[in-house]
Amino acid sequence: MSEGRVRLTYRLDHGRERDVSVPPGVTAFDAASWNGIAIDSTCGGHGTCRKCGIRVIEGTVPIGSLDIRAFGPEKLREGWRLACRAAANEDLRIEVPELVTRPKAATVGVGRQVILRPAVQKRYLELTEPTLSDQVTDLDRVLAAIDDLELRVGLSALRGLGRTLRAADWKVTAVIVDDLLIDVEPGDTSARRYGIAFDLGTTTVVATLMDLATGAPLAAASMLSKQQPFGADVITRISATMMDSSALDKLRELAHETLDELAQEVCKEASVDPAEVYEIALAGNATMTHLALGVDPEPLGVAPFIMSARSFPSLHASDLGVRVHPAAPAMAFPALGAYVGGDIVAGLLASGMDRDKRLRLFIDIGTNCEIVLGSAYGLTATAAPAGPALEGAAIRCGMRAAEGAIEVVKLSPSGVEHGVIGDVRPAGLCGSGLVDAVAELVRVGLIDASGRFVPRDQAPPELAGRLTEVSGERVFVLHGEVYLSQRDVRELQFAKAAIATGWSLLFEELGVTARDVQQVLLAGSFGSYLSPASAVRIGLVPRLPLLRIVSAGNVAGEGAKLALLSLRERAGADALMEEVRYVELSDRPDFNDRFIEQLSFPV
Amino acid sequence: MSEGRVRLTYRLDHGRERDVSVPPGVTAFDAASWNGIAIDSTCGGHGTCRKCGIRVIEGTVPIGSLDIRAFGPEKLREGWRLACRAAANEDLRIEVPELVTRPKAATVGVGRQVILRPAVQKRYLELTEPTLSDQVTDLDRVLAAIDDLELRVGLSALRGLGRTLRAADWKVTAVIVDDLLIDVEPGDTSARRYGIAFDLGTTTVVATLMDLATGAPLAAASMLSKQQPFGADVITRISATMMDSSALDKLRELAHETLDELAQEVCKEASVDPAEVYEIALAGNATMTHLALGVDPEPLGVAPFIMSARSFPSLHASDLGVRVHPAAPAMAFPALGAYVGGDIVAGLLASGMDRDKRLRLFIDIGTNCEIVLGSAYGLTATAAPAGPALEGAAIRCGMRAAEGAIEVVKLSPSGVEHGVIGDVRPAGLCGSGLVDAVAELVRVGLIDASGRFVPRDQAPPELAGRLTEVSGERVFVLHGEVYLSQRDVRELQFAKAAIATGWSLLFEELGVTARDVQQVLLAGSFGSYLSPASAVRIGLVPRLPLLRIVSAGNVAGEGAKLALLSLRERAGADALMEEVRYVELSDRPDFNDRFIEQLSFPV
Repeated sequence: MSEGRVRLTYRLDHGRERDVSVPPGVTAFDAASWNGIAIDSTCGGHGTCRKCGIRVIEGTVPIGSLDIRAFGPEKLREGWRLACRAAANEDLRIEVPELVTRPKAATVGVGRQVILRPAVQKRYLELTEPTLSDQVTDLDRVLAAIDDLELRVGLSALRGLGRTLRAADWKVTAVIVDDLLIDVEPGDTSARRYGIAFDLGTTTVVATLMDLATGAPLAAASMLSKQQPFGADVITRISATMMDSSALDKLRELAHETLDELAQEVCKEASVDPAEVYEIALAGNATMTHLALGVDPEPLGVAPFIMSARSFPSLHASDLGVRVHPAAPAMAFPALGAYVGGDIVAGLLASGMDRDKRLRLFIDIGTNCEIVLGSAYGLTATAAPAGPALEGAAIRCGMRAAEGAIEVVKLSPSGVEHGVIGDVRPAGLCGSGLVDAVAELVRVGLIDASGRFVPRDQAPPELAGRLTEVSGERVFVLHGEVYLSQRDVRELQFAKAAIATGWSLLFEELGVTARDVQQVLLAGSFGSYLSPASAVRIGLVPRLPLLRIVSAGNVAGEGAKLALLSLRERAGADALMEEVRYVELSDRPDFNDRFIEQLSFPV
Repeated sequence: MSEGRVRLTYRLDHGRERDVSVPPGVTAFDAASWNGIAIDSTCGGHGTCRKCGIRVIEGTVPIGSLDIRAFGPEKLREGWRLACRAAANEDLRIEVPELVTRPKAATVGVGRQVILRPAVQKRYLELTEPTLSDQVTDLDRVLAAIDDLELRVGLSALRGLGRTLRAADWKVTAVIVDDLLIDVEPGDTSARRYGIAFDLGTTTVVATLMDLATGAPLAAASMLSKQQPFGADVITRISATMMDSSALDKLRELAHETLDELAQEVCKEASVDPAEVYEIALAGNATMTHLALGVDPEPLGVAPFIMSARSFPSLHASDLGVRVHPAAPAMAFPALGAYVGGDIVAGLLASGMDRDKRLRLFIDIGTNCEIVLGSAYGLTATAAPAGPALEGAAIRCGMRAAEGAIEVVKLSPSGVEHGVIGDVRPAGLCGSGLVDAVAELVRVGLIDASGRFVPRDQAPPELAGRLTEVSGERVFVLHGEVYLSQRDVRELQFAKAAIATGWSLLFEELGVTARDVQQVLLAGSFGSYLSPASAVRIGLVPRLPLLRIVSAGNVAGEGAKLALLSLRERAGADALMEEVRYVELSDRPDFNDRFIEQLSFPV
């Protein structure tokens, strides 16, 4: 076992055993939950339901005061403890009783199997009517029937409580989110509970309606952020708030409209009443999260790049303008830094970066590129200012990855082959097409290591005809009007050099080399379309066997789903805040030298 | 020392000693605070500031984990402990160090000296500016400067935080209410912090603006509740909500308008910006509190008389429509029962019923009369349905205690003397005048023990001329058109019999007699005007030496002030919820017999 970890061996039904290793001090309950091993519990590990009994058969766990209340002296002697209180400070072998209530599990994120333990719970209650000799209040009557939880109560849950209890003949369903009672509904509605996971991107916003009882996604919808008119990237939107005092309110409203429109759309598609959505989760970068909450983003936009807060506790869906259940809480992913935001924390969670023992490199490519290197033994993060080239901006014939964009480029002796989104006539070049085009031109020697187009007479004869000039600048014609200019190549060089500087400095911080990296996860929609071969060719990612370079998809959105499905996973996001070390690149005196080193293409 | 109590002897400066006795388990800090003995603390007894060191010089207090962190081994051996963690389970002698920060105290309630420890705190902070090598978030920078408190943070405190810090050159004042950071203000505003105490009566609502830095009341205002058009008493207002589904919203709005109008008035009078009011406290009966919060009151109005909740945690001033600081919390006194509400809990707190060793009887007279009997050794409460007679309603010439009301009546050989409010021509008879009139007529024998006017020829000759008939009913003319009718006497008999049944049953419950009662506290505005002699004469209060019958004034409003001035006192209100036993009168089979026994006047 590696240094600083303890090994827990869980003995499951039919004598099966499972080994897991965790940092000392983690409870047997959490260690099991993190590794997909189910232990009974209705309170979610708060020490109140006393259902998570386990038997420690090798190793020692001291008896706690809650254990004394849960077990008799004999059971205590036999090793019975509450798993949620049993901190593992040495290697343990633990017997897990068969489950009384079989928890459901779902696969979310990068192939992660997650045991369902949503914050949203429902309890169907059949209460006894009060009498003159039993004048317990309506609220206490409800709470007494949920005696395994210690609940806080919102005023909204009380307003119509008296009427509901009496109209429903004391048969009601309590709606609980984490430790908050938010409503009491007439009759048995326990099968219906939903949540919405939002991926709040700078460009695109995605909503997924989740069935919290089964873990299944029921409907998804996406749209361009209504904040677009205020600028394509975070910096222009922050600038807008600095120049116009009403812009922050307007940007907040536009974020709210975007989120709410998507919420109504997914509910409609799945025939779910928005009032049955009891919680929302949101993963966004620091600026988008600040703007959506109406928090002044100005300090994020100017050195030294300061967030108002890393996390925003006690939020409501209404703080984000989302009209679901009126008392629905909202969970927003905390941010590691001004430029390593909640979207990255969600992505790390979804990809299990903090659980996997393999050394992995996580890269989320965008105008701001977030890079995280590490494993279960520690994570280090940084942000690299890649600029807008990879999003198709600042490129002569650049465009977003929409219909008509060349997204794949291949050079062959017969000329230029390309894949176009929508299979239509090419209208421009998107980020993945740009990377492909440059990578291929480097491969065939039409672009040299320094990034310059070679003289026409040194170009492969079958392609030389495409080297020409537009407005006095050398270009390579891809198709008709769509070409790649010398300056476009420079823009890409700047972008990839910034990113490569980021991961190479992280390698140095951790004392590892590219060869030690066992997997590269390309996150975000751009990462999904990028060709690993081309990315390696231009030096955007380290030179590794291509099978080790994996597209991880929309991990931010997956993280938001995870947060809805499991309180344990959500706690994992908070744990990440403590576990990830952030390295500021712009602070480093050697940044410029490194950057220049990375400008050339590997040959 | 009495059974079930421990004695703590505090050794103060200059060798002075103070003895107090408390239930076992109370901390040395709380016991001191409850008895006006000051111990240093900035966290208010939460175990975080570590400033409340005391030395236990006789008796034993086990060493806790926080003690180990606060003191070295030598000091621990000498008996040093944190007072807020030092539970007293035996008699102790304790040395209290001289105060570093002299806390201020104020006299509130029934002569209670209270050490100021308001929930509202301000901290002036001079922060260091962030740099690229110190990218701590704005929020964490603020929180780090308040390291003796563990604060929760509201979204509202974050919205403009970045701007405020930078505009104020990092010199700001944090506004904290209990454990919640609600705002960060530019510059040093620490001297200005205010709260408003509301006495939310069914008839009259009173607001007092309190300076929380000095404990001084700055302005007070009162007005008739705007809910009056929906009925004079709680039952008619509850009925209104049962008959018209929009009435609850309307009643809530009217309560909000009443409270807000008073809030703006007291702020204006004292030249305080409403945004400098950071907390409000409200004492009202259960129905008024339900209505003001928009909570359905119907179950309060019909047997078995059920409250939605005893206490309403996590309220905001905005939930009560009071426009002060937008994030100001609100504290509403919890209720003991549907008819022993938060106003009574506030009154008990203000009168120190739970601290005083004397057996005392607390009576708040109104349409619903609340009665509490007990001492520091235990309290028992009940509610008696006195009806509206004592408020001047249901009385032929009855009126409220307003200009023109006869409030004092005295019979002498020369005839009838009366005191009239405003010294104008009598227009009617208010409650205290009614009690006086009947008491005097009983004294001179014009009304017999059964409550009947005696035949004219048996009346004292100088008064016989005033015995006449109006609409066929026998009356006694007090002045001009103002008379007392036979039926009025009956109404008063019903009222006083209900009240006397209440306290006599409590005597029985506690196994005491009237003679054991060392003080009768008459609470509420009616209690302030009532003549103790007349009250004894008609049997409204037990027959006791008149000096033992004390008018306690508006104790509900005083309780609300106490809650603003001291978190400890507020905790005392919660403690009362556990300590007071509630006896339901309408449930007792012997109620009617007792009631009939009490109808006659003592002779």
